[in-house]
Amino acid sequence: MSKNEKKLKVIPLGGLGEVGKNMTLLEYEGRILIIDMGLNFPEDENPGVDYIIPNISYLSGRKEDILGVIFTHGHYDHIGAVPYFLNKLGNPPLYAAPLTMGIMEKRQDDFPSQPKMNKIVVRDGDKIEIGPFKTEFFHQNHNIPHNLGLFIETPVGNILHTSDFKFDETPQNGPATNFDKLKSFSEKGIHLMLSDSTGAEIEGSSLSEKTISENMETIFKEAKGRIITATFSSLINRVQDIIELSEKYGRKVVIEGYGMKTNIEIARNLGLIKIKKNTLIDCKEAGNIPDKKTTIICTGAQGEERAALMRIANGQHRFFELRERDTVVFSSSIVPGNERAVQNLRDDILRQGADVYHYKMMDIHAKGHAQSQEIEKMIRIMKPNFIIPIHGQYSMLVKHKEIADKTGIPEKTIIIENGEPAILTPENLYKSEKRINAEPVMVDGSGIGDVGGVVLYDRKELAESGIFVVIVVLDKKTKKLKNSPDIISRGFVYLRESQDLLAETRKKTREIIKEASKSRKKANAKHIKKEMEQKIEDFLYSKTKRRPIVLPVVIEV
Amino acid sequence: MSKNEKKLKVIPLGGLGEVGKNMTLLEYEGRILIIDMGLNFPEDENPGVDYIIPNISYLSGRKEDILGVIFTHGHYDHIGAVPYFLNKLGNPPLYAAPLTMGIMEKRQDDFPSQPKMNKIVVRDGDKIEIGPFKTEFFHQNHNIPHNLGLFIETPVGNILHTSDFKFDETPQNGPATNFDKLKSFSEKGIHLMLSDSTGAEIEGSSLSEKTISENMETIFKEAKGRIITATFSSLINRVQDIIELSEKYGRKVVIEGYGMKTNIEIARNLGLIKIKKNTLIDCKEAGNIPDKKTTIICTGAQGEERAALMRIANGQHRFFELRERDTVVFSSSIVPGNERAVQNLRDDILRQGADVYHYKMMDIHAKGHAQSQEIEKMIRIMKPNFIIPIHGQYSMLVKHKEIADKTGIPEKTIIIENGEPAILTPENLYKSEKRINAEPVMVDGSGIGDVGGVVLYDRKELAESGIFVVIVVLDKKTKKLKNSPDIISRGFVYLRESQDLLAETRKKTREIIKEASKSRKKANAKHIKKEMEQKIEDFLYSKTKRRPIVLPVVIEV
Repeated sequence: MSKNEKKLKVIPLGGLGEVGKNMTLLEYEGRILIIDMGLNFPEDENPGVDYIIPNISYLSGRKEDILGVIFTHGHYDHIGAVPYFLNKLGNPPLYAAPLTMGIMEKRQDDFPSQPKMNKIVVRDGDKIEIGPFKTEFFHQNHNIPHNLGLFIETPVGNILHTSDFKFDETPQNGPATNFDKLKSFSEKGIHLMLSDSTGAEIEGSSLSEKTISENMETIFKEAKGRIITATFSSLINRVQDIIELSEKYGRKVVIEGYGMKTNIEIARNLGLIKIKKNTLIDCKEAGNIPDKKTTIICTGAQGEERAALMRIANGQHRFFELRERDTVVFSSSIVPGNERAVQNLRDDILRQGADVYHYKMMDIHAKGHAQSQEIEKMIRIMKPNFIIPIHGQYSMLVKHKEIADKTGIPEKTIIIENGEPAILTPENLYKSEKRINAEPVMVDGSGIGDVGGVVLYDRKELAESGIFVVIVVLDKKTKKLKNSPDIISRGFVYLRESQDLLAETRKKTREIIKEASKSRKKANAKHIKKEMEQKIEDFLYSKTKRRPIVLPVVIEV
Repeated sequence: MSKNEKKLKVIPLGGLGEVGKNMTLLEYEGRILIIDMGLNFPEDENPGVDYIIPNISYLSGRKEDILGVIFTHGHYDHIGAVPYFLNKLGNPPLYAAPLTMGIMEKRQDDFPSQPKMNKIVVRDGDKIEIGPFKTEFFHQNHNIPHNLGLFIETPVGNILHTSDFKFDETPQNGPATNFDKLKSFSEKGIHLMLSDSTGAEIEGSSLSEKTISENMETIFKEAKGRIITATFSSLINRVQDIIELSEKYGRKVVIEGYGMKTNIEIARNLGLIKIKKNTLIDCKEAGNIPDKKTTIICTGAQGEERAALMRIANGQHRFFELRERDTVVFSSSIVPGNERAVQNLRDDILRQGADVYHYKMMDIHAKGHAQSQEIEKMIRIMKPNFIIPIHGQYSMLVKHKEIADKTGIPEKTIIIENGEPAILTPENLYKSEKRINAEPVMVDGSGIGDVGGVVLYDRKELAESGIFVVIVVLDKKTKKLKNSPDIISRGFVYLRESQDLLAETRKKTREIIKEASKSRKKANAKHIKKEMEQKIEDFLYSKTKRRPIVLPVVIEV
């Protein structure tokens, strides 16, 4: 390899080795194009954390080098980190389709200290030169409108970025996959393809939205009372479909849940959702309309605590309570980790006598991602020299590579994860030996990155057995106890019902201090504190088989 | 209904409206037969809790009335509460098959203060009179040997209890379903059937263990190195199958994980697992044997933190580390809530280059429960007058009832949940109007039932944002501050990196105390404490958008 050979770096900061917080950099001669800036939701291991965002330390001090940010579509795992990054990146130009831009703008309202977004609206078919990256945006089917794939001409060769995608020849809202267009890119030659892996482990092809719609219609035909549909607020096309069905069957529609209302408003202003004049009603009006003439579209299909569906099911909603003849439709898949919450919610709804439909009983949700056959088809259309599977857990990337290897088409498919750059040259694609810091960054309240290992570890410990604070006042000179030790605890035992344990612990504390203060030499507050911590912890464990965090407080007067 | 009509109560204390902690009482003229005493594992809502067991307050003071306890099989959701209940119930006679009894006995070792179990070993075909309950035990297929259904003749009519079951005409270990036997019960007339609902929402019939075994064999044929299979330690039949395949393909077998070793030992002593003389080797010996001649059977298919598979994958196992040519087989379904842990473990194994098989890729796990067609078949065989669906979440009980209603066979199928007794008379089955206390009881360390609402609520709060302790020393008379306020916190922020926040909080605390001590009247420690709690909480929220639990400590000297 000659030293002067052109090199382009593909740097994944998020979304490779996980589902969520997608963010990838393309760097050529020190100039950087960013694709997506998403967030992820925390798992159980991160208690109290609101969001997880990519680590952008690689970009610090490089504002001048950032050419801009392209957003493929308006899902939070592609746009959610924007409010945390704009200032840090020097407010770079943001390229996004109208709906994507609309959702991003709306979100900025929640972050008042943000700069005015540097917006460049792009559409299917637009071609824009962004430094050395000549980018053509093209329509890709997904479950949100205005999803754009990227065909990027670069000095080392053409790069195709699929965005999240599925093939759909009969979508419900918006155009079908344009295979001719895809082939035209292929004819120009694809050097590297970055392709969606989220659905790789599912065999076959994804369902068309048409099938979903047909199944939905049978529910509309059979429903005896109100229809309450819960789905993701970002599934604009599904919402459109439910509205159309409601209109067809003479039902008025109530939209419930803040996120749902906001997204529908944005999509409607852009003409992406069409609603007849008298279709929408508000919660209050719904009271005057027969149940058989009412549809409620709401959030909460994941069993979220405060979402509309949960409040309706719990009887905590201001206007609606569940009725026996209601039909509740969960029109979304379950995000891993939410299975129990959804099961419990379904049970609560069934207990009240309503009918429940969910995607395991009937195909009333189509995933937005290409499954194994579609992934293969994309490879066969594009015939890329190289592939990097993107967007997915490691096992999905592996499956994507297996599919690619089996076709015999790409010369090489490499798996890289967050923080592992790949180098693309006119002749080759290989993993860089240098790793980039891509440790996830936690957002908790207004703190970004100030919650990490120790804090989360402590939170988990606290959740396990609570905290036990013992306060003693010592004579400064003699180190003798001047009070009866005070005890405060939370999350450990019912203190009221544990008076014996408390009395014993006080006695034990007295002994510990007596013992520790014996030796003049060692008798300082630090030593006494340490002794208390260790010995009270052991004592409590021996009595309860639990290990609360013991916090000794020693005050000398 | 005449006042003297015979009445039998069916009282579910656990397992109805949930999957787990099965326990049902049959009560006739004040005399009680207990069926199963299981435990459940806590969900996220119960941090730090070890187990959840049924509430037996209904049985308190009624030792004399308890005729005995029948255990259908040796899974923990049927036997796990035994050590917590034996003393409280007056050590009643325990009826169980040899394997079930063996597992129960082994577990008693961990509870040294237990009474000697009052054991009565029963087998397929045994008939025993237990007070007014003439019980015949019969073999039912499941995924553990010695699973017994119950045919119980009572003064109000015959009751059939299916236990957990599936139909399997080609099981791998142990007898096939004996349909003639089932029909013979039917011919005697079934008044009430209590039947397993866990699989009701899955269409079709469960896979036979034979299919699983055939798929397993293809893995054995193709494996390039060691085979590491992870499964539940209670899936004795699967373990037997893996051992037989290992013997067929010339592999030695290492058993890893305490639970796995224990269960295999018990089953082997009972002749339920057959292992050739030189098949088993220990961890150390495995080092001398080629990888292609080694099988490791271990625990950890749920991604459990400390189980053998996790330790092998993490490089923390004393003897084994993962190798590139290893084949890892997850031969079990995923318990809801464990999806992410299993996905992460799979990814870690794949990253190390090993092959991974799991049940979604290939049928290498069969569930142990009758699916919709089998449930229907059981109804058609038994032709019961009445049905109570047991063992399942509410949605499963509902589906079971739908299946039953569709057959047109039972006169009535009623859904009851934990704490909702049903009354069976010679003519009827109906829900009692009286509810029984069936609030779940938490076991945490050595405490049983001492962790409840408040403690769990605090644990969740602590996990969310941690704790913040502020200690002030006041002059007893003037209520003036005598020290600089001390701050201790855990799980809130990195204290070292938050020195400004701490300084501000100290300042704020001084102001609060100054303000609070102004008014002579109100200036007592209690008032100051309250002010501190409220105002420091608000202050911290304004600064961080987090709400740690604030614990003010006020010491007067």
